[in-house]
Amino acid sequence: MFQSFETTSDPSAGPGRLARLRDHLRGEGLAGFLVPRADAHQGEYVAARDERLQWLTGFTGSAGFAIVLPDVAGVFIDGRYRVQVKGQVDLAAFTPVPWPEVKPGPWIVEHLAEGVVGFDPWLHTADEVARLEEALKGSRVTLRPVENAVDAIWPDQPPAPLGAAFPHPVTLAGESSESRRARLAEGLRKAGQTAAVITLPDSLCWLLNLRGADVPRNPILHGFAILRDDGTVDVFVDPAKLGAAARAALDAGVRLHPVEGFEAGLRGLAGVVRVDRGTAPLAVSRIIEEGGATVAWGDDPCRLPKAAKNAAEVAGMREAHLRDGAAVVEFLCWLDGAAPKGGLTEIDVVTALEGYRRATNVLHDISFDTICGAGPNGAIMHYRVTRETNRPVRMDELLLVDSGAQYADGTTDITRTVAVGDPGAEARDCYTRVLQGLIAISRARWPRGIAGRDLDALARFHLWVAGQDFDHGTGHGVGAFLSVHEGPQRISRVSEVPLEPGMILSNEPGYYREGAFGIRLENLIVVREAEKMGDMRDQLSFETLTFAPFDRRLILTGRLGPDERDWLNAYHAEVLAKLSPRLSAPARDWLTTACAPV
Amino acid sequence: MFQSFETTSDPSAGPGRLARLRDHLRGEGLAGFLVPRADAHQGEYVAARDERLQWLTGFTGSAGFAIVLPDVAGVFIDGRYRVQVKGQVDLAAFTPVPWPEVKPGPWIVEHLAEGVVGFDPWLHTADEVARLEEALKGSRVTLRPVENAVDAIWPDQPPAPLGAAFPHPVTLAGESSESRRARLAEGLRKAGQTAAVITLPDSLCWLLNLRGADVPRNPILHGFAILRDDGTVDVFVDPAKLGAAARAALDAGVRLHPVEGFEAGLRGLAGVVRVDRGTAPLAVSRIIEEGGATVAWGDDPCRLPKAAKNAAEVAGMREAHLRDGAAVVEFLCWLDGAAPKGGLTEIDVVTALEGYRRATNVLHDISFDTICGAGPNGAIMHYRVTRETNRPVRMDELLLVDSGAQYADGTTDITRTVAVGDPGAEARDCYTRVLQGLIAISRARWPRGIAGRDLDALARFHLWVAGQDFDHGTGHGVGAFLSVHEGPQRISRVSEVPLEPGMILSNEPGYYREGAFGIRLENLIVVREAEKMGDMRDQLSFETLTFAPFDRRLILTGRLGPDERDWLNAYHAEVLAKLSPRLSAPARDWLTTACAPV
Repeated sequence: MFQSFETTSDPSAGPGRLARLRDHLRGEGLAGFLVPRADAHQGEYVAARDERLQWLTGFTGSAGFAIVLPDVAGVFIDGRYRVQVKGQVDLAAFTPVPWPEVKPGPWIVEHLAEGVVGFDPWLHTADEVARLEEALKGSRVTLRPVENAVDAIWPDQPPAPLGAAFPHPVTLAGESSESRRARLAEGLRKAGQTAAVITLPDSLCWLLNLRGADVPRNPILHGFAILRDDGTVDVFVDPAKLGAAARAALDAGVRLHPVEGFEAGLRGLAGVVRVDRGTAPLAVSRIIEEGGATVAWGDDPCRLPKAAKNAAEVAGMREAHLRDGAAVVEFLCWLDGAAPKGGLTEIDVVTALEGYRRATNVLHDISFDTICGAGPNGAIMHYRVTRETNRPVRMDELLLVDSGAQYADGTTDITRTVAVGDPGAEARDCYTRVLQGLIAISRARWPRGIAGRDLDALARFHLWVAGQDFDHGTGHGVGAFLSVHEGPQRISRVSEVPLEPGMILSNEPGYYREGAFGIRLENLIVVREAEKMGDMRDQLSFETLTFAPFDRRLILTGRLGPDERDWLNAYHAEVLAKLSPRLSAPARDWLTTACAPV
Repeated sequence: MFQSFETTSDPSAGPGRLARLRDHLRGEGLAGFLVPRADAHQGEYVAARDERLQWLTGFTGSAGFAIVLPDVAGVFIDGRYRVQVKGQVDLAAFTPVPWPEVKPGPWIVEHLAEGVVGFDPWLHTADEVARLEEALKGSRVTLRPVENAVDAIWPDQPPAPLGAAFPHPVTLAGESSESRRARLAEGLRKAGQTAAVITLPDSLCWLLNLRGADVPRNPILHGFAILRDDGTVDVFVDPAKLGAAARAALDAGVRLHPVEGFEAGLRGLAGVVRVDRGTAPLAVSRIIEEGGATVAWGDDPCRLPKAAKNAAEVAGMREAHLRDGAAVVEFLCWLDGAAPKGGLTEIDVVTALEGYRRATNVLHDISFDTICGAGPNGAIMHYRVTRETNRPVRMDELLLVDSGAQYADGTTDITRTVAVGDPGAEARDCYTRVLQGLIAISRARWPRGIAGRDLDALARFHLWVAGQDFDHGTGHGVGAFLSVHEGPQRISRVSEVPLEPGMILSNEPGYYREGAFGIRLENLIVVREAEKMGDMRDQLSFETLTFAPFDRRLILTGRLGPDERDWLNAYHAEVLAKLSPRLSAPARDWLTTACAPV
């Protein structure tokens, strides 16, 4: 079992640790300290030694940060975690702060008349520090890069992870590391840059066609790289992580160094070096400049090429999704029979689903801890069931299951919300509106050049007109056997990145009623050139990768327009045709009914 | 009759004038010259003396510009004018350039190895010049502000207009000029600015509660103003334009100066002066800086307050739209009877429509020249019929009529596309998709803070999925008895201005098939706080101002979703209820049929 149901959060330890941290800060002449969730690689998953935010506060969410000041310790959390945080931190010691509505700069100024706030320059990007400094201008609060103050008071802090790296074959990657580096090096030369610094682990993995095991759920390798303008690359990783197979897969243009050599590597750079100010730690650019080279801010050169998957990567994702879809349908068939009998809990459901995925015999990992919320737990957007919160799956409630898998050929992420018994007319009304949003995104075609921001309203329209909405993005980027949350592509009000063929995204509108129920429906989709039709305009569209039925019992079919109904019936027919050959006989029968036209 | 059908464009004069312009430029040591459509006030309508682009090239569109170089003279036109320009300029002398796809900077560099390109600093904004200078960086082409070169070779250039200004009563404006200025002056003081320069005529009119007659269609007054941080204002207009009534309406805080005094006024400023870099001529900031004051770039302070109409302005707009809607229905009733009999031309239709509006007895002007396109002429987006292009209204074709009126209480702008006979299944299919876009915008509710950009896709979705689109914005801002095209609010892929209560916009999706037919449907809408419903979220929505039926014969009702059908039937019921009391008996009967539920 990959997923654990133990409670990793202990609110009771927080106040004591907070007091020790404040003692330490006073000794250093600091009024405050920033405690981000991020590590030096800005990933969503961090290793145990980097779980500083959780260790200090108890909060286990995948995003957020704390700002510790003498009289207040704010825990900044976004809309997904408003409910969760209340149960995880000691509210007498920590103050939840709604973010990004409340910005850290003004909040600090409000709570601190003057003083120095310390931060660890390896854990914050240059952008982040610059924004905060800008916001503090005119106040008597200043920032200072310091040694990490949480590490200083964390006696049993775990060591850095040593997960074994392994090759990602070129048959799945679709391109050799050498070819990828040659493409990127050409870009560096054109820009007059001698090198680019890579600090994102999924960029590192993509560039080298390696995968790793340094954090759970995402097969990434922690390390740094300096890509040279001749296409060679200096890689800084702990040598213990690279076994014979991984080393054999590297070509002669890859020079390996221990991770401790990274600082010296940066200091030795010359000329103009590209650094991503949105993702690289501030320490990187400071060290480069101390060494005498010039920093040119620019995108991590891997990000866009990695986001636009090639034909082999898309083919792998398609196959992974059919395999995963079959496992999900076996699960849904089981659930539909078992749930109404009573006695199931959320943990039973999560365990069963992981079992069906394990039965594929090629499950590498789940791609994130399954979110399985029965009834009101469905409204906790990123709920992760523990033995304490485990809830029975009751009749006449909704059950939301958001899950995914890592296979060598692809990463999946799927959400279905199902009825157990009859959850009532209001639930069906909301389910239908959410489904209409998913269908609109699925059907969209659009002129090349527009961004996720320009499509976001399509997913929300049917909720908006009912005075409803959901407080998360419509879609995130997804990697190919890499991070299930990958940038820069998104479908979101704040995403200005033009959508390009090969980009894979989630399409996951939702609706949440606190204390009552939650609904989310999610397919993965890939951007492609649209088949020419109508006026033969140059358009892009989405191909749906995920195949699994939506719960027909929750759809108010009379509320669908004819095009929506046609899409749903065509999708269900495709689900049935594609998955049937992969299913057990009972699941095939179940799916035939589940996919009947509405 | 306001509208004229004479041909104002003469392609034959262009080549000779272009040759004379090039001679003049050579004498001045210039390789080229920029000829914008704009005047010093950046308005859509310009006075006769400012019609330099038309005089030189023959092109009569409301947007565009020419760049004259030694070997090529480019006429830059947007998607609306691609067809029109071909018939208006001598293509041997002038080269139409698709804009904004082709940017002026790269185009200049492509066609001019080196040299100085002149421009008139009163006709270009600081933004525009800065963008062009940026684009020319690294080339051997430079820009130079010079005396206007077209004026130098235009022997019979008309004089500046002297339209009489008149008061706009506070009952309609909803606020006195003094109060408006006091509000804005407070903003200046808070920003530490001593003054703001006003160069936009509709800002001037709004600020002073005056209207004018310096250009056709828009009741604006050409002039400049310097608003002081004490709420007084220096106004620079030709004294001949201000009669006793206009002068009597001004309060003691308004100081009048001849327009020639503007330069001295700018030169005499001190401290920090706000100038709008997107709308003020470059000359303004140059003169202020020469005079020793500091320029602070910032929005014209009138723009946002003017855009967000107050209750009196919205009430006036509602009444104007009911009056105008009744005139339009009388017209549609007449058209429906007359057109199938044959013998009508586009000019007959335009004349009849203006007649129905004149019959209100309070028509101040039409708000723009009516666009009336029969059959393929409907595909010319901003078509204006002339005696030469006048086309019979034929059976089994579509007729597109886009028109509006200026009344003292409000400005209207409405487009309806109607069937004459049976225009066929394809026309009905496209009409239905356009209508679905209009309905989606009409029904939208959204969280406060988002911009027109975020809603634009809703208007296009049903076209996009058929491989279709329209090459203009979905909606423009509209003034209250001011310009029918008003900034900064828009519904457009490029509009980042958050929508605010009181903003009035058009909602006008369309579809155009060159050589075949055009469809556009347009209502005006006003942003308001949405009535709380559902989750009681803080939402904004639109109230529709325009009342007139859509052609039921062109709607494929089976293609509408239930919500779309409900909206249409509710709208038609409201049209009938609101307009019936204002109609003649035959029009009332006709409207009853036209508004029957689908």
